[in-house]
Amino acid sequence: MKNSYSPLLVASMLLAVPQLLSAQEALRFQTVGSGPHVNPDSTVTLSVHAPQARAVEVSGFGAAPLAMQPVADGGDWIVTTPKLRPDLYTYSFNIDGVRTIDPANVYIARDINALFSEVIVPGGHADLYSVQSVPHGTVSKVWYDSPALGMTRRMTVYTPAGYEDSVSRRYPVFYLLHGMGGDEEAWSQLGRAVQILDNLIASGEAEPMILVMPNGNAGLAAAPGETSAGMYEPKGEHSRAEEGRFENSFRDIIDYVDSHYRTIADKSHRAIAGLSMGGGHAFRTSLMMPDTFDYVGIFSGATHWKGGAPDGSEKDLTAALGRQFADAPRLYWIAIGKDDFLYDLNRSYRTMLDELDIPYEYHESDGGHIWSNWRDYLVIFTPRLFKNAE
Amino acid sequence: MKNSYSPLLVASMLLAVPQLLSAQEALRFQTVGSGPHVNPDSTVTLSVHAPQARAVEVSGFGAAPLAMQPVADGGDWIVTTPKLRPDLYTYSFNIDGVRTIDPANVYIARDINALFSEVIVPGGHADLYSVQSVPHGTVSKVWYDSPALGMTRRMTVYTPAGYEDSVSRRYPVFYLLHGMGGDEEAWSQLGRAVQILDNLIASGEAEPMILVMPNGNAGLAAAPGETSAGMYEPKGEHSRAEEGRFENSFRDIIDYVDSHYRTIADKSHRAIAGLSMGGGHAFRTSLMMPDTFDYVGIFSGATHWKGGAPDGSEKDLTAALGRQFADAPRLYWIAIGKDDFLYDLNRSYRTMLDELDIPYEYHESDGGHIWSNWRDYLVIFTPRLFKNAE
Repeated sequence: MKNSYSPLLVASMLLAVPQLLSAQEALRFQTVGSGPHVNPDSTVTLSVHAPQARAVEVSGFGAAPLAMQPVADGGDWIVTTPKLRPDLYTYSFNIDGVRTIDPANVYIARDINALFSEVIVPGGHADLYSVQSVPHGTVSKVWYDSPALGMTRRMTVYTPAGYEDSVSRRYPVFYLLHGMGGDEEAWSQLGRAVQILDNLIASGEAEPMILVMPNGNAGLAAAPGETSAGMYEPKGEHSRAEEGRFENSFRDIIDYVDSHYRTIADKSHRAIAGLSMGGGHAFRTSLMMPDTFDYVGIFSGATHWKGGAPDGSEKDLTAALGRQFADAPRLYWIAIGKDDFLYDLNRSYRTMLDELDIPYEYHESDGGHIWSNWRDYLVIFTPRLFKNAE
Repeated sequence: MKNSYSPLLVASMLLAVPQLLSAQEALRFQTVGSGPHVNPDSTVTLSVHAPQARAVEVSGFGAAPLAMQPVADGGDWIVTTPKLRPDLYTYSFNIDGVRTIDPANVYIARDINALFSEVIVPGGHADLYSVQSVPHGTVSKVWYDSPALGMTRRMTVYTPAGYEDSVSRRYPVFYLLHGMGGDEEAWSQLGRAVQILDNLIASGEAEPMILVMPNGNAGLAAAPGETSAGMYEPKGEHSRAEEGRFENSFRDIIDYVDSHYRTIADKSHRAIAGLSMGGGHAFRTSLMMPDTFDYVGIFSGATHWKGGAPDGSEKDLTAALGRQFADAPRLYWIAIGKDDFLYDLNRSYRTMLDELDIPYEYHESDGGHIWSNWRDYLVIFTPRLFKNAE
């Protein structure tokens, strides 16, 4: 027997391909619309097929939802946004009172307990949010032991392009912390931190560095669905009673990173930053580990101080700041939007720093407590790190 | 100044927390329903708030959609499925002609170009699909250079728990391939391969191993959205003209893995398996690299042979099989469902193997060309690997 495949069988093999295309899983190849279309004038046209709907809106492009208009008799609804600033936009439809993602757009991100469709309007910093034709770093979900919290916990670690191909080169480390309701996936999803680092490093604007994104919720081991708690509905898990517990466990994170990655394990090669709750974590962690971080970023930070240091040893914030700034960080960077609800809290903290003659840099933007600002702050902050570090 | 924070400021800090909870991003904490509820009798109750809808259905639990029923006047719709076999179910709603995921369930997976909500009905093999309280492996997205395909390509690599904490222990490698329209994320998402490996290794049923899930589309570098092509609408990218190109590039994958991970780089410590198109890849790759894999799994495999080997050097399948089985793989495992549209193709291939007296094992299941079967095959196949390998 030269070849047991009959001509009929060979024909059936060839014919099987279009059939395979339609049968991967029942009905998985669907016509679901056209997805968001970014127009040359930086408007975005959105459409959805909702033949029986009475009212369709889209939220995510401005303060108020945009009403979509029915298109003739075909059952499609359409709207074109106003001209938009370059950015990543997260949006959802409301179809007769049902909130839904865009059925024609597979690109989504979870923000706490809701899913949003995504679209990028290019230009400016937003070009850093897109995947470009540059070398890409490795993104890993790793589990580390935290004796301080009594659990094994998950974090996201980015190693820059080239890391895997070297056996000796060592790198600085940037610890980047999420906000309340977020987790170890927030910065790599909504924050586009992987794309931002890939692009800034490829262009030479940022130093090659390891980026570590841990889970800042002291009571949780990992993102929703990634623990034996199962697929529960996520909440904004946090309480003030937790304050200090994550900060106190930070040594566990640093120990894991320094023992499992080729780091440069000293203050001048460590940065810490965070948004909102994570800004508070960066504030307090750098405060209580004064010899550890030469770069501190507080993005829309929850700079609360409840009158006792995380480990209970320090009630006096002034004294703690005095210790931290005795050998001042190279960069202590505070950023917030004019409309952020934490603006007054941050202003009070800056006033305190001013009165203590503590050096810091301040970046004030438009807007409020939003990812648009946090991505932008990351783009501004990251190129400042580890330049000419000894 | 002992502490510049005034009593009023301290009060505002404490008060800021509930405000923070509601202001993370506008309206991100939403009441969106209750999500799927798995009942003790293995039925699942689903609900959705759709106050103006005329008809609501759910697809994914059986051959036909289930009609949901309105609940009194509150605008909610509800249905309880029939009793279900333990499995991971992917489902979607149809609300007045609009296909949507469950707005109250953040757990989703993409299958080619559509998103599905997920729920696990526990029991049996499905318990292996859930995250359990066991040590977890590391999951990485890495980029490797493929000279054969002329591009840098993305793959998902799982290293088992303990790998990161050793500097010397070496591991066998299992290469696991997706089907048409899939990519390097398919097995870790819909396939639950990470959970399956974690759980099988923790229980001792499977050997600790490295699991490599590359992208089998020779014309693509990575999953949709992960290249500079941007956030395009994914299609089922493949053509018969591509056949052989991915297989021919497989040496690039093995070279990367053997040079970047602590592998045992010999035939008795390598396995290859795939589903559908990936089953064809496993069939042809193991055929053309006869000294490379001691374990071969063909799950619902597209076991096409177009009359020429992938590299054009071999037209005679019988001769090629003769070379592969001269030093036969320890396990050559073919699995398919009775209702699979590739059933006849597989039967013809098995007939050929029988006529050649080639040893293989055959597993026939119920059902068709579906992920439910492929997860199940992975659970059966993986414990067979690398046992008593020399």
